[in-house]
Amino acid sequence: MLRAASNELRCEAIVAMAKALETRADEVLAANAKDLQAPEALALSESARDRLRLDEARLASMVEGLRSVAALADPLGIEVSRELRPNGLEVSRIRVPLGVIGVIYENRPNVTSDVAGLCIRAGSAAFLRGSATALRSNLAITQALRAGASAVGLPEDVVCLVEDPSHELAVKFMQLNGIIDCLIPRGGPALLASMREHASVPYVIDGDGNCHSYVDKAANLAWASDIAINAKAQRPGVCNAMESLLVHEAVAERFLPGLAEAMPQVEFRGCARTRELIPRATVASEEDYATEFLDLILAVKVVASADEAIAHIQRYSSGHSEAIITDDEQLAEHFRRSVDAAAVLVNTSTRFVDGGELGLGAEVGISTQKLHWRGPMGLEALTATSWFIDGKGQVRP
Amino acid sequence: MLRAASNELRCEAIVAMAKALETRADEVLAANAKDLQAPEALALSESARDRLRLDEARLASMVEGLRSVAALADPLGIEVSRELRPNGLEVSRIRVPLGVIGVIYENRPNVTSDVAGLCIRAGSAAFLRGSATALRSNLAITQALRAGASAVGLPEDVVCLVEDPSHELAVKFMQLNGIIDCLIPRGGPALLASMREHASVPYVIDGDGNCHSYVDKAANLAWASDIAINAKAQRPGVCNAMESLLVHEAVAERFLPGLAEAMPQVEFRGCARTRELIPRATVASEEDYATEFLDLILAVKVVASADEAIAHIQRYSSGHSEAIITDDEQLAEHFRRSVDAAAVLVNTSTRFVDGGELGLGAEVGISTQKLHWRGPMGLEALTATSWFIDGKGQVRP
Repeated sequence: MLRAASNELRCEAIVAMAKALETRADEVLAANAKDLQAPEALALSESARDRLRLDEARLASMVEGLRSVAALADPLGIEVSRELRPNGLEVSRIRVPLGVIGVIYENRPNVTSDVAGLCIRAGSAAFLRGSATALRSNLAITQALRAGASAVGLPEDVVCLVEDPSHELAVKFMQLNGIIDCLIPRGGPALLASMREHASVPYVIDGDGNCHSYVDKAANLAWASDIAINAKAQRPGVCNAMESLLVHEAVAERFLPGLAEAMPQVEFRGCARTRELIPRATVASEEDYATEFLDLILAVKVVASADEAIAHIQRYSSGHSEAIITDDEQLAEHFRRSVDAAAVLVNTSTRFVDGGELGLGAEVGISTQKLHWRGPMGLEALTATSWFIDGKGQVRP
Repeated sequence: MLRAASNELRCEAIVAMAKALETRADEVLAANAKDLQAPEALALSESARDRLRLDEARLASMVEGLRSVAALADPLGIEVSRELRPNGLEVSRIRVPLGVIGVIYENRPNVTSDVAGLCIRAGSAAFLRGSATALRSNLAITQALRAGASAVGLPEDVVCLVEDPSHELAVKFMQLNGIIDCLIPRGGPALLASMREHASVPYVIDGDGNCHSYVDKAANLAWASDIAINAKAQRPGVCNAMESLLVHEAVAERFLPGLAEAMPQVEFRGCARTRELIPRATVASEEDYATEFLDLILAVKVVASADEAIAHIQRYSSGHSEAIITDDEQLAEHFRRSVDAAAVLVNTSTRFVDGGELGLGAEVGISTQKLHWRGPMGLEALTATSWFIDGKGQVRP
């Protein structure tokens, strides 16, 4: 039984899964070639076809990914708290497996082995539902993973794939109460909307990132410029990229023209004062301030105070990552206490809100919900806790 | 703003709420008298009328309850983890307020001040929906609490009561996504079923407790007897009472007849071997093993091994509290690793699974779900975490 499997056995299983995937590379690549030749796949956009495509290098990276998960520290058995009660009871809270983790994902076949490895590492079975276009690839990968689990004596069913990729069954999958202990979506807005509408099992959602940076009047403007350029332009298409920039009026004139010059590739949309300082900027609408552009577009607003910036963030934030650039430590603390987000950053780039960058070793997603786990989810986010209570015959008076 | 309120201000607010409730005792008791005289209240059972009834002593205990919550340690600002990253970023996870906590409850007016105090202590606004029968009482209590909050400079709306107690509005309340950050039901099976059907906001559910105790062949039988009597009979109507007892066949003959004699008030339902050893026992059906009796009834099964007991628990457990009585420490560890429950107890009574007994200071309920918080919920269960990331101008390469 996986729940009771030792750390060693779970690691051996993942290493065996990696080995089986390596051994069966030809079958996986052949299945993937069939997926790519199917009419539905031929109708996909080139970028979607690219996400679906496997080759030897990508398969090798999936194998390597599994091996690196085996090398991560065990997330189970960790003591969250311990107390000796006055009546002699030893009370501790300990990290234990969730049970069955469901994952719904789109047409990247590598997700199959990535998430299966993380689930097994955390002592939970992986119940997977990938996209119809990747079904043959996912089946071949799953068969390899199951063979690996079996080779070390675990049940094959520690990894299961839904073989009917219909929409009806996806909805049923989201309603497997009592079977799925935690459902994690890996996909775009349509999948998240469907989860919110249909899911009745507990889930952790990886939502939008409408991330702000506020450049205070007490900011180190050289840092502020580096940070703004990094947060906006280093990789604009991801959820931890900056979408809106707020600038204190006292430094706007010294800061904004240079920033605009340093990012000629970025489209600026701003308030009246922004447009005075950046002639190429167009008018920012309410909707612009509310939008996760995921593109080389930046909404800018000049504010009269830090509290105006905080109020703007409270209004438009999606609760992902919010940054302040200031040398005023008291203001930084006020900002931390006032802003309600998964991550609050001081004097650095929102792009650091990432499991790898924060030392989690692996990332399942970035939770924008408040219950269970918030922010980048590593192995710990895939566990539950139990109270362990040890006595010597004590009874309650 | 409550989110940014200091520990001192939150405590002062709760003390002021207690004072206001004390000052307005006459108004609250007059409102309660009207509730009790309303036709719907006159139609209630005597026990339901008793739950609705306030008197000077009960009101004093509500006031005292608020003062004791003010005296609890601050659950906010607690460091869950901290790490200095190789690039110099200081990364910590810190306990922060949830935001708005919704509570739906039945006709105990004391819940109004109890949960409002806990929410404010945890830095969250309390959005309350009580029963129609208690509306006048709840309004009078809420007005006092709002006056208390206002007296220390917090917005009155840190405590809000839904003034339309219709079923339609209760359903809408459960769907206030974006307003309610966490919904907590305080009530019976009908309320929980309605939550599972209608709620779209994140919630924490306090489910059934079909709790087992397993008396191993290596058990200290004197302890086992004390524990079984305590777990079954000390307060049978609560969720942490034992409902089923599993006994290893090697000790059944020495254990069960004496236990039955020691609990003449308890009805036994058992397997064939149980009925041989306890002549008054009747046949236990599958349904008996699945039932949370909340009564002086005990289902008993004699098992051939610890693993048979574990398999029985896996099949019938509601994931609340499961106990083993054994002197075999290796078996105890196997039991802890195999059983999937909010609490796993060794050599003690399931009745200890309670916020007060475990040192939480106050209890909002006992979560039987796995995400967010599991088991007795104190103030910590009413918080979220944020990542705080402090830099000196670092950007992501």
